[in-house]
Amino acid sequence: MVTADANLFLEDKPREECGVMGIYAPGREVARLTFFGLYALQHRGQEGAGIVTCDGRRAYSHKGAGLVSQVFNEQNLSPLTGHLAIGHNRYSTTGGTHLRNVQPYLIETIHGPLGLAHNGNLTNALQLREMLLRRGVGLSSTTDTEMMTQILAAPVEIWQQNGLTVIDEEDGWIPRIRAMMQIVDGAYSLTILTNNAIYAVRDPRGLRPLSLGKLPEGHVIASETCAFGTIGAEYIRYVEPGEIVRIDANGVTSFKGAEPQQRALCVFEYVYFARPDSMLDGQVIHRVRQNMGRRLAEESPADVDIVVGVPDSATPAAIGYSLQSGIPFSEGLTKNRYIGRTFIQPDDGLRKQGIHLKFNALTSNLQGKRVALVDDSIVRGNTAGPLVQLIRDGGATEVHVRVSSPPVRHPCFMGVDMATYRELIAHKLDVDAICERIGADSLDYLSLPGMLGAISDTTGFSNSFCTACFSGEYPLNIPEWLFESDRSKLQFEGIWDA
Amino acid sequence: MVTADANLFLEDKPREECGVMGIYAPGREVARLTFFGLYALQHRGQEGAGIVTCDGRRAYSHKGAGLVSQVFNEQNLSPLTGHLAIGHNRYSTTGGTHLRNVQPYLIETIHGPLGLAHNGNLTNALQLREMLLRRGVGLSSTTDTEMMTQILAAPVEIWQQNGLTVIDEEDGWIPRIRAMMQIVDGAYSLTILTNNAIYAVRDPRGLRPLSLGKLPEGHVIASETCAFGTIGAEYIRYVEPGEIVRIDANGVTSFKGAEPQQRALCVFEYVYFARPDSMLDGQVIHRVRQNMGRRLAEESPADVDIVVGVPDSATPAAIGYSLQSGIPFSEGLTKNRYIGRTFIQPDDGLRKQGIHLKFNALTSNLQGKRVALVDDSIVRGNTAGPLVQLIRDGGATEVHVRVSSPPVRHPCFMGVDMATYRELIAHKLDVDAICERIGADSLDYLSLPGMLGAISDTTGFSNSFCTACFSGEYPLNIPEWLFESDRSKLQFEGIWDA
Amino acid sequence: MVTADANLFLEDKPREECGVMGIYAPGREVARLTFFGLYALQHRGQEGAGIVTCDGRRAYSHKGAGLVSQVFNEQNLSPLTGHLAIGHNRYSTTGGTHLRNVQPYLIETIHGPLGLAHNGNLTNALQLREMLLRRGVGLSSTTDTEMMTQILAAPVEIWQQNGLTVIDEEDGWIPRIRAMMQIVDGAYSLTILTNNAIYAVRDPRGLRPLSLGKLPEGHVIASETCAFGTIGAEYIRYVEPGEIVRIDANGVTSFKGAEPQQRALCVFEYVYFARPDSMLDGQVIHRVRQNMGRRLAEESPADVDIVVGVPDSATPAAIGYSLQSGIPFSEGLTKNRYIGRTFIQPDDGLRKQGIHLKFNALTSNLQGKRVALVDDSIVRGNTAGPLVQLIRDGGATEVHVRVSSPPVRHPCFMGVDMATYRELIAHKLDVDAICERIGADSLDYLSLPGMLGAISDTTGFSNSFCTACFSGEYPLNIPEWLFESDRSKLQFEGIWDA
Amino acid sequence: MVTADANLFLEDKPREECGVMGIYAPGREVARLTFFGLYALQHRGQEGAGIVTCDGRRAYSHKGAGLVSQVFNEQNLSPLTGHLAIGHNRYSTTGGTHLRNVQPYLIETIHGPLGLAHNGNLTNALQLREMLLRRGVGLSSTTDTEMMTQILAAPVEIWQQNGLTVIDEEDGWIPRIRAMMQIVDGAYSLTILTNNAIYAVRDPRGLRPLSLGKLPEGHVIASETCAFGTIGAEYIRYVEPGEIVRIDANGVTSFKGAEPQQRALCVFEYVYFARPDSMLDGQVIHRVRQNMGRRLAEESPADVDIVVGVPDSATPAAIGYSLQSGIPFSEGLTKNRYIGRTFIQPDDGLRKQGIHLKFNALTSNLQGKRVALVDDSIVRGNTAGPLVQLIRDGGATEVHVRVSSPPVRHPCFMGVDMATYRELIAHKLDVDAICERIGADSLDYLSLPGMLGAISDTTGFSNSFCTACFSGEYPLNIPEWLFESDRSKLQFEGIWDA
Repeated sequence: MVTADANLFLEDKPREECGVMGIYAPGREVARLTFFGLYALQHRGQEGAGIVTCDGRRAYSHKGAGLVSQVFNEQNLSPLTGHLAIGHNRYSTTGGTHLRNVQPYLIETIHGPLGLAHNGNLTNALQLREMLLRRGVGLSSTTDTEMMTQILAAPVEIWQQNGLTVIDEEDGWIPRIRAMMQIVDGAYSLTILTNNAIYAVRDPRGLRPLSLGKLPEGHVIASETCAFGTIGAEYIRYVEPGEIVRIDANGVTSFKGAEPQQRALCVFEYVYFARPDSMLDGQVIHRVRQNMGRRLAEESPADVDIVVGVPDSATPAAIGYSLQSGIPFSEGLTKNRYIGRTFIQPDDGLRKQGIHLKFNALTSNLQGKRVALVDDSIVRGNTAGPLVQLIRDGGATEVHVRVSSPPVRHPCFMGVDMATYRELIAHKLDVDAICERIGADSLDYLSLPGMLGAISDTTGFSNSFCTACFSGEYPLNIPEWLFESDRSKLQFEGIWDA
Repeated sequence: MVTADANLFLEDKPREECGVMGIYAPGREVARLTFFGLYALQHRGQEGAGIVTCDGRRAYSHKGAGLVSQVFNEQNLSPLTGHLAIGHNRYSTTGGTHLRNVQPYLIETIHGPLGLAHNGNLTNALQLREMLLRRGVGLSSTTDTEMMTQILAAPVEIWQQNGLTVIDEEDGWIPRIRAMMQIVDGAYSLTILTNNAIYAVRDPRGLRPLSLGKLPEGHVIASETCAFGTIGAEYIRYVEPGEIVRIDANGVTSFKGAEPQQRALCVFEYVYFARPDSMLDGQVIHRVRQNMGRRLAEESPADVDIVVGVPDSATPAAIGYSLQSGIPFSEGLTKNRYIGRTFIQPDDGLRKQGIHLKFNALTSNLQGKRVALVDDSIVRGNTAGPLVQLIRDGGATEVHVRVSSPPVRHPCFMGVDMATYRELIAHKLDVDAICERIGADSLDYLSLPGMLGAISDTTGFSNSFCTACFSGEYPLNIPEWLFESDRSKLQFEGIWDA
Repeated sequence: MVTADANLFLEDKPREECGVMGIYAPGREVARLTFFGLYALQHRGQEGAGIVTCDGRRAYSHKGAGLVSQVFNEQNLSPLTGHLAIGHNRYSTTGGTHLRNVQPYLIETIHGPLGLAHNGNLTNALQLREMLLRRGVGLSSTTDTEMMTQILAAPVEIWQQNGLTVIDEEDGWIPRIRAMMQIVDGAYSLTILTNNAIYAVRDPRGLRPLSLGKLPEGHVIASETCAFGTIGAEYIRYVEPGEIVRIDANGVTSFKGAEPQQRALCVFEYVYFARPDSMLDGQVIHRVRQNMGRRLAEESPADVDIVVGVPDSATPAAIGYSLQSGIPFSEGLTKNRYIGRTFIQPDDGLRKQGIHLKFNALTSNLQGKRVALVDDSIVRGNTAGPLVQLIRDGGATEVHVRVSSPPVRHPCFMGVDMATYRELIAHKLDVDAICERIGADSLDYLSLPGMLGAISDTTGFSNSFCTACFSGEYPLNIPEWLFESDRSKLQFEGIWDA
Repeated sequence: MVTADANLFLEDKPREECGVMGIYAPGREVARLTFFGLYALQHRGQEGAGIVTCDGRRAYSHKGAGLVSQVFNEQNLSPLTGHLAIGHNRYSTTGGTHLRNVQPYLIETIHGPLGLAHNGNLTNALQLREMLLRRGVGLSSTTDTEMMTQILAAPVEIWQQNGLTVIDEEDGWIPRIRAMMQIVDGAYSLTILTNNAIYAVRDPRGLRPLSLGKLPEGHVIASETCAFGTIGAEYIRYVEPGEIVRIDANGVTSFKGAEPQQRALCVFEYVYFARPDSMLDGQVIHRVRQNMGRRLAEESPADVDIVVGVPDSATPAAIGYSLQSGIPFSEGLTKNRYIGRTFIQPDDGLRKQGIHLKFNALTSNLQGKRVALVDDSIVRGNTAGPLVQLIRDGGATEVHVRVSSPPVRHPCFMGVDMATYRELIAHKLDVDAICERIGADSLDYLSLPGMLGAISDTTGFSNSFCTACFSGEYPLNIPEWLFESDRSKLQFEGIWDA
């Protein structure tokens, strides 16, 4: 049955928090390149965007709320001169949506200007916060990012006083970044800008992706490889877990930042986050998703006439399901592309009908058909019901839902806005109950081994993923209070934006 | 070869000018319903939106530039009270993008308030303009729409003095609308609001679509049926060419407005404009497009490994091509969904590479493959080249372009922003030359009979379409000056917005 | 006693509705000159501003809500090219504050472009409106100004058919303007722009001011002469009641527009509206106001230690009172110059104290003093009480209020937003009761003969003013319904802005 | 002679940098009170405004660019809850106009939230900046204010390590504020907000004013006493140089913050900055200015017919000049009150005429008169010439300029945007040469002893003022580089806003 409070606009997906960029390219307009890179990474964050550049002497910054195309125009882009740039697309997990939380952060330090863009989430943020406050550093925001800039601003002696082993080097930033990597815990893929170099930093577990590419005139760092094509760069390799990559006048230099641990790349990048044309582990995401659909067809066949995917993200899996099962793939749903968010509420009449404004049914393809409806994931479960109903209203005689990933039963604390325990439908209900709730004729999820198998079949990588949201096995220690409390509790008491 | 000035953002498609809505529904929040209807019709115009309502005594209006979700918020929507509403999505053909050209128009007449929303283009606009000016009516804009409101504002006697046969009736608006239909020529699908009724009016050739639907509490008019599903309305029928439909307290009444002529529905609605889930002539557009793809496969087979469609509009035709040919359908291109328009220009480096920011290649599906790339239409031909190159760069060994409609060789003067003669690539080059220009291994278009056959096979309708842009056979008289001159010449001299 | 609901920000003054400009000056940037002229006339209207220019072939327009400095910037001013310009500052009396009511109006007519800016109010607006609607002209706003443009758009034949005597002339606009002057009634000072001339038009009673000035390269029309100094123009003369002045390539030509009637210039221009440095009837306003203060001192002496004026408008009268009485003038009140309107409401505590945010007392000058507080007018009487209290709180032992104009007892229907009968304190209470209400030790107004005497002493003009708000003797016929109803009833039913 | 580049809009005055507010008042809406206080202090800064409140647990902040009435509305004011508030009006001296420099600053510290609003300028900013950076604190802006918050965020131990004597107390903020006062040098009047108290802090020389007032429910701190009247507070006393005043649940407590030094209150507060209705040293400013005018009349009589002041600031001095000399005071200039800044540039014609848009002459009062034109100060000297010309054009036969303060010959480094040496006309020219430059018949300034005498006669205070801009005797050590360089050099290299 379709519930009355079905969300009419949003999709039932977790939300990736950020995309980061970094470019070193003398002779190119690096702010412009960064803009187009962020444009390609827009799916990783739509709440804010920013670019920081440096010409070797001064650093320049512009950031704002909204899509990257809304934040930037020629007037505010052109003063961002220099040959070094970092950029950021923001979706807020911690820190609220206030402008002052938009990244990158840029501060002046005793070592010169420092810019930082961050994708991830620190699990020991509260301890770090207290450490900084105790050191006498005031904090003007609630972001991990501001904390990391203030940690990097400290002279190495402070770390040595605190018992950290910090080996001095020619490049002073390397020991400072290493020191930071010793004390921060969690997921982080960073791009850092200084007076003369761009640094790419990835946490020891490699929880969030980060890749290195080549431009004719320099190099580029991006959260996803899809940004490379957009700006004419070529993919070289991904940044290794625990690695620091420096790009400067001497080209690309690699440093060990922290002892790498068992890799735990977020498996949801494969399931949903990454753009289908991005590469992870040497393979195009689209192919991996297709294979997940194939596995799903093997594990959970359905006696149906057509296979329909929920556009656009589940289309590759649906095609895979179709290819494997031999059941024809068909478009059964259209999606309204004009996603400009609206805050207009439906009236009671519309609400009662449980109308789904984002999708419409293609009745010509559905009429009289038994349908396998393939989705890539179900999180809260609030849109699956209306979709099933839509397919039925479109003339389908049976609707069998197939999901190309396992049930999401645990929240994420590593940089993904998933949901809390009490919001996750698979935490509260078993598969049969979910099936009943969403009104499907049958419901099946891809098994965890099936999903990992589909990935390893394609990429050769196995057992190197964070599957916490499916399995509950977190790759790092999660503080108890995080489990017990709501995400928003990460908001420290003290400052609140009006 | 990829040309350097390839447009990096826009697609090579003609642009439909408008979507119209009209609702009569006592007890419902009609402005809200109209908002959601316009939301569903957003693809028909993204430059402006407006809603006019009436409570039987007063009329209320709000309009603005941008997407419907940008123009409206709860604060400006809620004062739009009443049980009658019309709405409009604007893409400007004539009249410029200035706010004062945004529709609907609302004026006070001797007969009470009059609102009008218009989809189409009048071919005798200059004569009508002069007629009004001679009558002593000043005009504050350059739109057809303002002219039509002023024509309707005239008392019937004026028409009678001008030799028009106007039979008086109980409902005075009917003879006035009929009089207008006697003097305006061109394409028009209108929704009209008065103190106590909504009228739907369609030109005698039915050039632009217009459909009637049913709500539990009343009725609704929309350019496309996809708006009905969104607001919980049921499709009843389309408005007939030359028909006036009145919706008021007495329900739906049909009047003959003008002698219907040979129907000439714009065939491009089937090819590209209409949303795939809308119905025309009783058939879902998606199915017709699939059949065009099937026909294309019959007419122009290709010895390839996979069939790839240009997303999203050509996907149905590509699926049809695949189904008919038995060659597997595969996703080969991804499209950046975050279409927020940007005015940031690429730097020289990007320009030289001819990068296409809107699409990326799915290399995993293309590597080593011979590809049939199906598109629904080619107009200026400026994006086909970069797309072919993208497919090649993605690893394809051959790229055979197949277009599911005939070559576009003639401009449109009936409400579509197509292009001028000198911009149309098929007006300047033959198919072989276009093939060479875009760098494809082969190029084929669906024939005109093939396209019409695909439509009639599905819908039963044949020979009732305007095919002027393909055939050069215009269904109505086009003034010579229109052919000779640029569209923008329709801008009358005299007033210009600063 | 100070009432709790004292308005904390606004002053108790009537509001002039508009300022108009017109410039003909080949070789100059007329839009720029008009901007600075409107800047000088800003006190005549702060709700909207607009400029229309013409280069002889095309007309250009920009207008918006707010102060002239807010509406215009270099970007929107520079496209306003040409050598002809009209401009307008708006304070809305009729027509609401909606953008579409902002002037000047610009329309295309059969005779070419027509721009019109209007200061005044038509008393037969409803009849004119009906006349136009009956003629089949739809109206998109509720302003007099749109009506006048549509009246002028009509061919002369229409007027001849209606029995008007219209003599044809070389310049077709002259008979059309004359025809309009035969049918509109009320107060109007207009500037009109056509393809090749600027026209200045003043109603037969000369209710609102309008002056002609000379630039090195042409001529200028303005509501007040203070605009001349600002743009380097010299005052020539005022436009005569009933006169049409044309400025074009042939220089300045005068036409009789309508038979002049007994002049009835709004006397409130002398009392409060006009800037003190403007000239009326050949005399600087400041001197006339000083003389009003002298007369007031003669008629209503006060046994006080100092004379204090309510800044800034009553300062000249206070100086006159001081000069005549020999009692020292002293500044006793300061005014917060930063008048940016705020919509922040005071809390209960502030409300109870009846604090006046616009003024503060200068205690050093007031301490232990008996004070004559001179104001130029009292309309609603809602700020006089708080001012008296402020003076007392500042240490004054006695406060004697002296007003340099008679009690305002009647509303204005000729273009001034005065108040309705039930709002006018002097319509409801006699002078003693007002004195008690505002808590003064004594209260006196200048008599009507005294005020007119002060004017005629300075200017030589007497018996040629509209004194309706003081005397109730209206210089023209006021329809009964206007007396009976609220101003806002002028809003015709039908269209209302949301 | 009138120079061609006369600034047409701005006045030739130094600009005070800021106004600060602080309120502790349980039971009142303190943000609202702060708003009205800032409204009264608007003359001290028009570029930005902000309010920070605290409810004892959380702190709330809103700030923005523009006038306080533009920055705040009910929607952003109402979330600022609590019983503690500080506020700030900004005119930028250091730090640029970028939003991130708008005050108050609010940070989280180990001691809880900390808000700070600052009026003044630190002369050892560069050393402080380096000290903070060396301590490992990154800085995100170029303001003194951010530095002071970071200094206060440090634990006392840091100060003790640095050899500062810091006595611990019950209230930990007192020793921290004292420690800060030991290391910062320059002018500062601060309001500080913490979890449970408001602090007012004034530098040991008392360079900028700061006063304490009483509300029925608590206390208030403001830069000027005029803010007290506006919010219904009573003046108690000024904050002593070097004093820390704490306002909390225990009422008002005074602490010695630093050893007071010879007081050096900015004498320009008396000359121009402070509102005439504010009190300094127990006397209303208006009276002091009147006495300056009296002294000026004694020192520099003029054989003239009338005394005219440059409105509004010089009116009190002009009245004093008139009272002392017995020559009648007269209004000779009017000022356009609608000061909305415009960026429209005059055309060449206007530029050549040297028109002054801000003032107009009152010819009726000037015709045939010998005029003493009293101004309060001349800084750059760019508007005096056009004013003299305006008076002459208004008909004056002679213009004798009298200035009620000495020639400004030295820049200010203590929080006033005066000008640089090369901009100060009296640094480059002697009085005779200035007289010739501005085209006056004679020119005289009040002597320094005369000015100080006028103040001490009224207030009893003498020899306790900073007169550096007149005398060159700076009350504190000014670093050499400040003298040598432009103000803007204070902008540290490194970060720059795009």
